[in-house]
Amino acid sequence: MELRAALYDIDLPEPTVLLHEDDCRVIGVKDGDRVRIASASVVIAITTVFDTLVNMGTVLLPPSVMRACGASPGDSVEVSMSHAPDSVRAIRRKMDGEVLSQEEIEGVVADTMSGRLSRIDIAAWLTALHIKGMNIHETAAYAKAMACSGERLDFGDRRVFDFHSFGGLPGNKITPVVVSIVAAAGLVVPKLSSRAISSACGTADFVETFCRIDLVSDDVKRISEDAGGVFSWTGATDLGPAGDRFITVQRPLGIDPKPQMLASIMSKKMAAGATDLVIDIPTGDESKVKTLEAAKTYAKDLMVLGEELGIRVECAITYADQPLGEAVGPVLEARECMQVLEGVPGHADVAEKSCICAGMLLEMGGFHDGAAEARQILESGRALEKFREIVLAQGGDPQVSSESMVPGGFTRNVVSDRSGFVRGISNKAIVAIAKAAGAPSDKGAGIIILKKRGMKVVKGDPLIAVYADREDKLIHALEVAADSNPVDVDGMLLDTVRPGNGSRKSCD
Amino acid sequence: MELRAALYDIDLPEPTVLLHEDDCRVIGVKDGDRVRIASASVVIAITTVFDTLVNMGTVLLPPSVMRACGASPGDSVEVSMSHAPDSVRAIRRKMDGEVLSQEEIEGVVADTMSGRLSRIDIAAWLTALHIKGMNIHETAAYAKAMACSGERLDFGDRRVFDFHSFGGLPGNKITPVVVSIVAAAGLVVPKLSSRAISSACGTADFVETFCRIDLVSDDVKRISEDAGGVFSWTGATDLGPAGDRFITVQRPLGIDPKPQMLASIMSKKMAAGATDLVIDIPTGDESKVKTLEAAKTYAKDLMVLGEELGIRVECAITYADQPLGEAVGPVLEARECMQVLEGVPGHADVAEKSCICAGMLLEMGGFHDGAAEARQILESGRALEKFREIVLAQGGDPQVSSESMVPGGFTRNVVSDRSGFVRGISNKAIVAIAKAAGAPSDKGAGIIILKKRGMKVVKGDPLIAVYADREDKLIHALEVAADSNPVDVDGMLLDTVRPGNGSRKSCD
Repeated sequence: MELRAALYDIDLPEPTVLLHEDDCRVIGVKDGDRVRIASASVVIAITTVFDTLVNMGTVLLPPSVMRACGASPGDSVEVSMSHAPDSVRAIRRKMDGEVLSQEEIEGVVADTMSGRLSRIDIAAWLTALHIKGMNIHETAAYAKAMACSGERLDFGDRRVFDFHSFGGLPGNKITPVVVSIVAAAGLVVPKLSSRAISSACGTADFVETFCRIDLVSDDVKRISEDAGGVFSWTGATDLGPAGDRFITVQRPLGIDPKPQMLASIMSKKMAAGATDLVIDIPTGDESKVKTLEAAKTYAKDLMVLGEELGIRVECAITYADQPLGEAVGPVLEARECMQVLEGVPGHADVAEKSCICAGMLLEMGGFHDGAAEARQILESGRALEKFREIVLAQGGDPQVSSESMVPGGFTRNVVSDRSGFVRGISNKAIVAIAKAAGAPSDKGAGIIILKKRGMKVVKGDPLIAVYADREDKLIHALEVAADSNPVDVDGMLLDTVRPGNGSRKSCD
Repeated sequence: MELRAALYDIDLPEPTVLLHEDDCRVIGVKDGDRVRIASASVVIAITTVFDTLVNMGTVLLPPSVMRACGASPGDSVEVSMSHAPDSVRAIRRKMDGEVLSQEEIEGVVADTMSGRLSRIDIAAWLTALHIKGMNIHETAAYAKAMACSGERLDFGDRRVFDFHSFGGLPGNKITPVVVSIVAAAGLVVPKLSSRAISSACGTADFVETFCRIDLVSDDVKRISEDAGGVFSWTGATDLGPAGDRFITVQRPLGIDPKPQMLASIMSKKMAAGATDLVIDIPTGDESKVKTLEAAKTYAKDLMVLGEELGIRVECAITYADQPLGEAVGPVLEARECMQVLEGVPGHADVAEKSCICAGMLLEMGGFHDGAAEARQILESGRALEKFREIVLAQGGDPQVSSESMVPGGFTRNVVSDRSGFVRGISNKAIVAIAKAAGAPSDKGAGIIILKKRGMKVVKGDPLIAVYADREDKLIHALEVAADSNPVDVDGMLLDTVRPGNGSRKSCD
């Protein structure tokens, strides 16, 4: 029916038009249905029904829809029922456990990007993926469709090296070190990272403490070609934007369907032009991947997926039963990362893991004994030199050093109430405390872990130091620490078994 | 953090607050996350992020949230991250195929009603139900929780009779006839019906052509006690509102999870105070329930469910391989319904089905040979008298008759292009044509089926008459009819099998 267009000034995450209930009945739509708005152009939008806010005969359009259909306030527009797109049928078929065709999967991605699928549809899609999964061919088609949903970097015939870490390991700050080593060896490595999703500090969150991370795709390409690498943020590019669209629905649900995760990783790498990719899979009880067996399955899937997508993939399954290094939180991680590049003693685990991952990339690029080569590049200072070159190219101060990184001014230690040995460190508790202290938005907030697994502890020894930019957050973080036992100290005797008595738990 | 409250004047279907991206980072939330708004009271709302529309330091609240948290524009309110409610965990457990406890199910319903669960969560819930199902105890808990989500009618110790038809059968216009017979026999039958969801005409859609259907709960109770029954609309009451909340998410997805359907039916009946319930399950190829076996399973589930809920349930599995009666569409169905009550010859199937369903209720109420009793009440004119009493009580003209019901002024017949017998009538095609003609919002629009299954047809005979209130819609409906073969006419010979030749399809 013909309705008069009026403006309401909010572009919600999905294109939403507001209609009077009686008009809806004539059009044949209800709350949540799709309508077709035709003026100069045609737009599909989601209906929301109001019988008070909207006058009969009027349709309220948000700015994006008004623009897209080429109407102006006061114009007459034709509003009609729009049937569900074919991708809704594909979603139902996935609910029923069917294998989807490439076309069906492309349809879901395209309709997600165009707004023809609502958040309700996308939630159903992700739930179906979580329950029913995808085979590797479907996952490859999904990754391709997501890669094609936005910009793509084109490095011509050059081989392009890339690196990705699964989440779930606090303090996993190796990216700038790996990129600096690999770029120093002459390979191209346009590494884009994300901010924290549920963790205390993503790579982008700590890199932005010493240089800009909001590089657009052209800058990523230019700096990668000039300096050999970048360590920037995916959020300022338009690489694989479909993945981000899905994440806004997936995150509130608290699920991470395996095909979604795999396709999302590979789509970003494909869009960035990667030909050779190393994937770090931190594995441990409190990590995203809990067992070696599960890690091997992920690795196999990623390698097969890489084959289908024309990307050579190798995986490193890495230790994740405690945080990597000592620092968690933006400034603290940046400082530790630079200390590794500067050759400051300590943080041997960070240096070793960086050299292993960089070494794998170097071997893919033709070097022999990549880990030793990486170690040599790191120890010679060539990695630090490359790091400074990239920092400068990303708008930072090339003279930046670990000493210039100053953590939050409010700090307190958490001390041990017993003597013994560190039996375990809870990644989850460390993350919770660092977030309570203000990380990642308060840059100086975080934790230094003073006692790691296996270390001897005397009652009263400090276990962790908590930093915050604000006193109230420090207090809050200490409360969280008191409730969560981040560092578990116990004697060497776990239990005794003797004839004639039961088992007794040893205490300090 | 403390933010200044400002108003934006749209209450979206879920409580949505608008925040600046930088403030979101400090609070630790992203698009789609829940926030806690604290002023005089505490409200949970869904976040939507804007970095252009909203100023830093400001939170835009819709009127409902502003009211609920007791703030006024310009007030300072505390906005903080709100963790997902426990019901999100219950949804994830259902995704994983777990059996949920009564408390978990109550939590999902309560959080759906309070807005703590977003449409994204609800879509995931319904998808999980569609894929994983519920056992009968879960379904009973679900029905109870939905019944308790709104008002409940209380008829004290009286037995309350009720009636429900599954959807999918066009022309299933028996409700006012059944209610009139049962009420005439002295039983209480507060029957609430819905409008069409995807069909051409729901009971409420045709009843409103001759009386008011927007009775609130108090009126439903009063009229049921005075006149013995009502035939009104659920939409004006607040009985089992949770079911309606779920439907707004379920409908766009095009799914109807079995536990959702069963619990939703039973919750409405429970809230209406029913003690004795007859459920009509139309069964046929193009109906919601396709096979006798499936119908029997539904019947068994509903009866067990009734036992758990303290409602005596009996089911009628009924013929649905063609529309019931001849009329489809609001005024046309109202006319046919009155003709049955007035004893006008024809429509034997409508009269018979009405008497069977009414008869089952009468037998539950203590009558012997209920169908014969119902037939006697119908043929004696006592049902018509009761019908007029209820119409008057519902604000209609008690002198209303079939002759006063005037269908749309634009009409054309669809004629047969061959001679033979009616081999089948497509329910789906009939619905599509009636909707194209304007039903149910155009009250005069619809179809009269002139040739039903098994009837002899001579080439040129009219098969259906299409009615519309507007000429353009009549033309559109005739186009749909030309494309969809609503009445399938063919010879009696289906095929021949002879020695020495293949099989040959006979033609007219």
